[in-house]
Amino acid sequence: MIRGVLSVLLLLGAVWSTFATPKQYIPKDGKRVPETLSRGWGDQLKWAQTYEEALYWSRSSNKPLMVLFHLEKCKHSQALKKKFANTYDIQKTLDEDFIVLNLMYETTDKHLTPDGSYVPRIIFVDPSMTVRADIVGRYSNRMYAYEEQDMQLLKANMEKAKKLLKQEL
Amino acid sequence: MIRGVLSVLLLLGAVWSTFATPKQYIPKDGKRVPETLSRGWGDQLKWAQTYEEALYWSRSSNKPLMVLFHLEKCKHSQALKKKFANTYDIQKTLDEDFIVLNLMYETTDKHLTPDGSYVPRIIFVDPSMTVRADIVGRYSNRMYAYEEQDMQLLKANMEKAKKLLKQEL
Repeated sequence: MIRGVLSVLLLLGAVWSTFATPKQYIPKDGKRVPETLSRGWGDQLKWAQTYEEALYWSRSSNKPLMVLFHLEKCKHSQALKKKFANTYDIQKTLDEDFIVLNLMYETTDKHLTPDGSYVPRIIFVDPSMTVRADIVGRYSNRMYAYEEQDMQLLKANMEKAKKLLKQEL
Repeated sequence: MIRGVLSVLLLLGAVWSTFATPKQYIPKDGKRVPETLSRGWGDQLKWAQTYEEALYWSRSSNKPLMVLFHLEKCKHSQALKKKFANTYDIQKTLDEDFIVLNLMYETTDKHLTPDGSYVPRIIFVDPSMTVRADIVGRYSNRMYAYEEQDMQLLKANMEKAKKLLKQEL
């Protein structure tokens, strides 16, 4: 008797779950792996999605912001990314002391293109929302460009960015 | 003899790999799962990251854009998300005929807040970059709000958005 009741319950459960599970959409060309906000620049970092979000986080946490412009099809971006993501010091300091944002499309804010909209390009922003145009790389024609061999300079520049500007109140 | 050489080679290999593999950064509070651009609103969709990016895709592909504002801590957003992500028709049509963007922070564009910046809120934008303020939900006080039971209305509104406005050239 108890067995019979259990069987009926199991059957009902099976029928119910068939109807209750919604049909999942799978694209014609096969299942996709969702894109991450990190895009390979450091999976352990908490990346902001947009410049507005990053500015909000920077102001509310009083941490400087690093904005990193790159493109998937740019060899220089890819070479920098590989080194950047695998440099322990850079990743640790970014996680602990910075707000981070990586973008493949320009924003409408002209302050983020002090000398043009090339990639890869790294711009620091103070929590007072001042773009640190004074923190530059080693190339005079593309002042905010970095290459894979520039990790020490980048680290030094991060230290500069950590010395916050006095906030005007 | 051959064994000895092999052992030395193996040892050298082990030493080399120790030096060659960069030390990966793991946060103190443990390894994190990278955040996705979908944020649970449809893992099979190709989400734009920013409004600028979404507008670019919309214009270049001549597809309407759906902008979805939400918050992780908002119960209404979470209930809508669950239904939205599991509604086959919505996901399929979005994947095939729309550009999609979900945001947790407002943009600086006031056209995206026709009646305020509440969540959840869904705004359609024509490829001509015109915000479709005429495509509304069922709530007169929050015209762009949708709830989980509004999937049919949302689908109907998506069909409206697919009838593109004439582009002024």
